[in-house]
Amino acid sequence: MKALEYAQTHQEQFLEELKEFLRIPSVSTQARHEPDVARAAAWLRDKLLAAGFPRAEVMPTAGHPVVYGEWPAAGAGAPTVLVYGHYDVQPPDPLDAWRTPPFEPTIVGDDLFARGAADDKGQLYAHVKAAETFRQTAGAPPVTLKCIFEGEEEIGSPSLDPFVREHADLLAADVAVISDSNILGEDLPAIFYALRGLAYVEVTVTGPAHDLHSGIYGGAVHNPINALCAMIASLQDEHGRITIPGFYDRVRELAPDERAELARVPFDRQAWLEEAGVTTDWGEPGYTIIERTTARPTLDVNGIWGGYVEPGAKTVLPGQAHAKISMRLVPDQDPAEISQLITAHLEAIAPPGVSVEVRDLHGGGPAIVRRDSPAMQAAFRAYGAAFGQEPVFMRAGGSIAVVATFQDVLGIETILMGFGLPDDNLHAPNEKFHLPNFYKGIETVIRFLENLGA
Amino acid sequence: MKALEYAQTHQEQFLEELKEFLRIPSVSTQARHEPDVARAAAWLRDKLLAAGFPRAEVMPTAGHPVVYGEWPAAGAGAPTVLVYGHYDVQPPDPLDAWRTPPFEPTIVGDDLFARGAADDKGQLYAHVKAAETFRQTAGAPPVTLKCIFEGEEEIGSPSLDPFVREHADLLAADVAVISDSNILGEDLPAIFYALRGLAYVEVTVTGPAHDLHSGIYGGAVHNPINALCAMIASLQDEHGRITIPGFYDRVRELAPDERAELARVPFDRQAWLEEAGVTTDWGEPGYTIIERTTARPTLDVNGIWGGYVEPGAKTVLPGQAHAKISMRLVPDQDPAEISQLITAHLEAIAPPGVSVEVRDLHGGGPAIVRRDSPAMQAAFRAYGAAFGQEPVFMRAGGSIAVVATFQDVLGIETILMGFGLPDDNLHAPNEKFHLPNFYKGIETVIRFLENLGA
Repeated sequence: MKALEYAQTHQEQFLEELKEFLRIPSVSTQARHEPDVARAAAWLRDKLLAAGFPRAEVMPTAGHPVVYGEWPAAGAGAPTVLVYGHYDVQPPDPLDAWRTPPFEPTIVGDDLFARGAADDKGQLYAHVKAAETFRQTAGAPPVTLKCIFEGEEEIGSPSLDPFVREHADLLAADVAVISDSNILGEDLPAIFYALRGLAYVEVTVTGPAHDLHSGIYGGAVHNPINALCAMIASLQDEHGRITIPGFYDRVRELAPDERAELARVPFDRQAWLEEAGVTTDWGEPGYTIIERTTARPTLDVNGIWGGYVEPGAKTVLPGQAHAKISMRLVPDQDPAEISQLITAHLEAIAPPGVSVEVRDLHGGGPAIVRRDSPAMQAAFRAYGAAFGQEPVFMRAGGSIAVVATFQDVLGIETILMGFGLPDDNLHAPNEKFHLPNFYKGIETVIRFLENLGA
Repeated sequence: MKALEYAQTHQEQFLEELKEFLRIPSVSTQARHEPDVARAAAWLRDKLLAAGFPRAEVMPTAGHPVVYGEWPAAGAGAPTVLVYGHYDVQPPDPLDAWRTPPFEPTIVGDDLFARGAADDKGQLYAHVKAAETFRQTAGAPPVTLKCIFEGEEEIGSPSLDPFVREHADLLAADVAVISDSNILGEDLPAIFYALRGLAYVEVTVTGPAHDLHSGIYGGAVHNPINALCAMIASLQDEHGRITIPGFYDRVRELAPDERAELARVPFDRQAWLEEAGVTTDWGEPGYTIIERTTARPTLDVNGIWGGYVEPGAKTVLPGQAHAKISMRLVPDQDPAEISQLITAHLEAIAPPGVSVEVRDLHGGGPAIVRRDSPAMQAAFRAYGAAFGQEPVFMRAGGSIAVVATFQDVLGIETILMGFGLPDDNLHAPNEKFHLPNFYKGIETVIRFLENLGA
């Protein structure tokens, strides 16, 4: 295949361009980097045009812009593929923990070290370069390509959902593909076919109208911290099973064949414990660690605060206590419904003497893609050919809100075509991208598009 | 009585001096205020000398210094009274809840607003000014006065007990008096004959060795915040009765005659609810609000923190969670024993996957004094004359560790001669001292010393 040959012979050029991309510190969470984020968007638009996209533009949003590209297929009747990626990156802090400068891409062995190398510039750029190979060979890709690259993923994509809704016609496609996740190893490709959703609330428990002296009122005024702790404790049994009425009503139980397939995923419990930094695992009985972290819902307190938190002892009976509580959701749970359930439940169990207020901070639906769809099968074969090894099907424990948006607004499924590795240090110092995965990633995308267009 | 006349005609001067005292932010719990604490000590020594004390000095301790003053009685054979007070104050946080600056004393109506106004600078200073009236009239007080004013009360008086033990001869006295409590109303004087003790611990629950992504690990790694909440919740039943094994073993039950006497204390439930800023009371069934807040032990979480506490949503599964927990104790509970009980209990109930560390922050024993002693009767008559109303006998819900120290080391009882009011906002924003109580307080002290010296 000529496209593959072209990719093979242009690796050095592709790498140099990726390094250029990585030198732009497009940190979306820090206002001082706003010009860099804009620069990264313009750079990416130029590279789309250079790759052969007849249309590529920087489109404004309420926040950082979206880079949009469109390239009609070489032939008629070909499907349309919507490629999503993000060109913004996490802050590099703590800086002194980096062995090489975060925005000066450095190759050590087979790895390219830089902030954003794997998350998500390297993975995104594999799609741009895969498209370019068709221009140089067939003149145009075998499918119609639409690219939507956002600059706000690391701040929760506040503008993306409105953008997709506003431009639903422009973005109409048959399937979406995202490369913003990892496989299991260089020789262990994997396809994630499900994501967990998220319902995230902030809880405020109010007791006395003002802070009191615990010596004077203690024993006769309910303490909102004690009350909050009791309420949180009652949301789960001792194994973490959630006790909110109705919480599990829509949970799709794992079918035996799916459990059998998940059980084939290589898993080293000892290595997992070391990575997590714990001495033992924990959680809902009757499910494996992989099942508990990907196919079962959870409830975690992500933050808690109230009363006196400075050094020393202060005998205050505080007026309020607060907690941030998030629940990972699985198909077919609905984040808005779950948010209502926890709100109603907390209000119902608030003890006498305190009141509770629950604020919905954000939510995203879970997603699951059919493993036997044509697009999934096209991806399956592409990975197998590029990596020399059939991929395993997995679920992901995290949430990618855009997948639910594509499902809800555009009515399409998303293929999660990750090329990262588990030790890429995402969001941490010394982030890297394994270069063989960059090149195999480009090949996988080429083959995926060929399979789809065939 | 000439001393009373002098007090009457010098109110303005006394008030100006008190305001000067209150401007010094002698926050003992915060290292950055250490120079202010030292400045308050020096200021107080100077005021003792100016009042007529022939001996007054700042005496070092391992922490903040003690201000000591001594003034022999005018006549021979008079008893010795040891006056205790503290010149340090609570932190003013939260600052934005103050209507006037905490360290710029401001008079609104009959109230003087400032951090430390009632707790304890205003009450302490009533004793200094009462002493001064004797210099200006009889030349010396009718009893030998010894003053011990400490700068560490708000951090649990770590140096006071060693100081008293080291200087037991210097401090030898017949009775101690402390004004660091409140009466029931401007026209409702009261004498507290019992205090609750305190055991204060800081609890750290550790889960994973570092913060984790809740999407990747949630469901299989125990979250230390959830674990801490469950552990705290299990320390009490729904009515606040403490479930730590052995906790109530040494609690002296209220005798029927004492319950009858406490029931005579005027109590307006509605006013109490309004002061506390709550819609309903809460606590151990079978006891009145007064009994629950003064004669029964309690457990309050004074502070809690862990994970992400900034605005917005972060899906972290944190490595640690922390809480400050204090227990008010009643005769004959022992703070060291209670601290051991809660430590052993928390260690016993820590769930799999987390570890718990309990650090003893401080403790103080409960105290109870005979209601029929000569000094108690002298105080009883002094209050009656100064306030125009006989005082009622009450227990106090707070803790003054020094009372137990005076009992144990010096073998003397302590008269708790409070002049605060229940709504003084101790340890809270907008602390105040009711100025008529400042002046009546000075008169009560003068009469008390006259009664004792007679």
